[in-house]
Amino acid sequence: MSDAAFSRVAFIGIGLIGSSLARVLRRDKLAREIVACARRQETLDTARALGLADAFTTDPAAAARGADLVVIASPLSTYAEIGRRIAAELRPGTILTDVGSVKAAVIRDLAPHLPEGAHLVPGHPVAGTEHSGPAAGFAELFRDRWCILTPPPGTDPLAVGRITRMWQSAEMRVVTMDAEHHDKVLAITSHLPHLIAYTIVGTATDLEETLKSEVIKFSAGGFRDFTRIAASDPVMWRDVFLNNREAVLEMLQRFTEDLTALQRAIRWGEGDKLEDLFTRTRAIRRSIIEAKQA
Amino acid sequence: MSDAAFSRVAFIGIGLIGSSLARVLRRDKLAREIVACARRQETLDTARALGLADAFTTDPAAAARGADLVVIASPLSTYAEIGRRIAAELRPGTILTDVGSVKAAVIRDLAPHLPEGAHLVPGHPVAGTEHSGPAAGFAELFRDRWCILTPPPGTDPLAVGRITRMWQSAEMRVVTMDAEHHDKVLAITSHLPHLIAYTIVGTATDLEETLKSEVIKFSAGGFRDFTRIAASDPVMWRDVFLNNREAVLEMLQRFTEDLTALQRAIRWGEGDKLEDLFTRTRAIRRSIIEAKQA
Repeated sequence: MSDAAFSRVAFIGIGLIGSSLARVLRRDKLAREIVACARRQETLDTARALGLADAFTTDPAAAARGADLVVIASPLSTYAEIGRRIAAELRPGTILTDVGSVKAAVIRDLAPHLPEGAHLVPGHPVAGTEHSGPAAGFAELFRDRWCILTPPPGTDPLAVGRITRMWQSAEMRVVTMDAEHHDKVLAITSHLPHLIAYTIVGTATDLEETLKSEVIKFSAGGFRDFTRIAASDPVMWRDVFLNNREAVLEMLQRFTEDLTALQRAIRWGEGDKLEDLFTRTRAIRRSIIEAKQA
Repeated sequence: MSDAAFSRVAFIGIGLIGSSLARVLRRDKLAREIVACARRQETLDTARALGLADAFTTDPAAAARGADLVVIASPLSTYAEIGRRIAAELRPGTILTDVGSVKAAVIRDLAPHLPEGAHLVPGHPVAGTEHSGPAAGFAELFRDRWCILTPPPGTDPLAVGRITRMWQSAEMRVVTMDAEHHDKVLAITSHLPHLIAYTIVGTATDLEETLKSEVIKFSAGGFRDFTRIAASDPVMWRDVFLNNREAVLEMLQRFTEDLTALQRAIRWGEGDKLEDLFTRTRAIRRSIIEAKQA
């Protein structure tokens, strides 16, 4: 086994992200043993049928027992309770990581449960699809995407290095930053786009029935792309907004101001203002294509 | 030649949509002769290099001369002037159609120029990409998408039938509706999504430089999809908003109310309200997949 390998890896949560990472660990032989933990037996049955782990349990403590790596891959609202339940099982040297989309709240919820000598290396693989559950995962999900690690100051660099190499095995580009900064960047690149997509699809849902059926029929004009984003996991996203409240509200405020300015330009027929903005936004798309993130 | 065929087809505007339709007419031998008209010589040179037409001109009147089908495929702001310039060339029996994303304004701008015996059959193929220009077009762009025709009351059914069959050759599903109704449906399925995408990408553009480079890096979390939409043609979209002002402002008002409600739910930590909406929006995605528009 390589230096990146673990002896027993516990997945607390085995949905889209957890199961995709489990597939990577299997493929690259990075874990001697994998334990999958989920709240619902149905999820575990699917994970078993897919061969994603060697052992299956609904008890986080049992999953974490004897693990040298614990990966929390469940909604953010479950973290504090999971931390409380697995605390007594974490040994010195064990690495506790996660895949959540908000990072300051993760440190807030998990750090108090960490015993002396165990390592907390919060992580966020910026990858996903609109599908959920263990059957939706695939090892190539992470390829060429970024993974952001937010180890608290003073975290053992060796632990950070092992998590870094794990995500590099998943073909991710790994970067480390401060948790608060992560939450600010993701508020604009991910959380606000999801909030807006959910909103506009909700607005369409409330239309009169006849109009609604036509919205579905003619969705190819742009709406369709929003529905894909707005089909993402409801509980996961509820927790993201509740746990990154300040940064999301700040970006939302900026967005609303900009939208109001455009509304005014449309009302008063100020075509030059519209064209000016629409021309500027093209440049960002080019940058994303150049950065190979398109 | 089949009954769907034309003898001389003039394209006023030969960008993404116009050139894609020209490719269909070529492929299916639906036009004995194609004339391409564009304002910029560079566009015509590209169209010529691609073999999209038999004749090329910067003069709409010269293009329309002798045509039995005139297709306007340029930004909406150019229609009134084009109508004025081609009016004298339209013969009895000639069909004038277009591909614009707003339809009431098209009838307002073109109908006054229509001579006795010529037919106005406004059309809107609901298909596109974020790319522009004659080189971006391809014949398969329209496949399985909807085309909406909005002939004014009293339009010759034979003319509507010929335009219907033309779009069916492009593998589109064709439907006819009232222009005002079209504009209302498209305001929510296309115009508002574009406005919102332009806005959020603009909001990101205004961030401090350091944050902006990270937005590009980590765009895979949702933002990326908005940048694709916000890379659409600036002049075309400016004209859409200016020409469908009332319907866009009404949908925008509904959207803003819904967004404000979500903002409040986030601020007050009302997770149940968020989860409820996020669950409802999943259903619309399923409907779109079932309607084969995903």
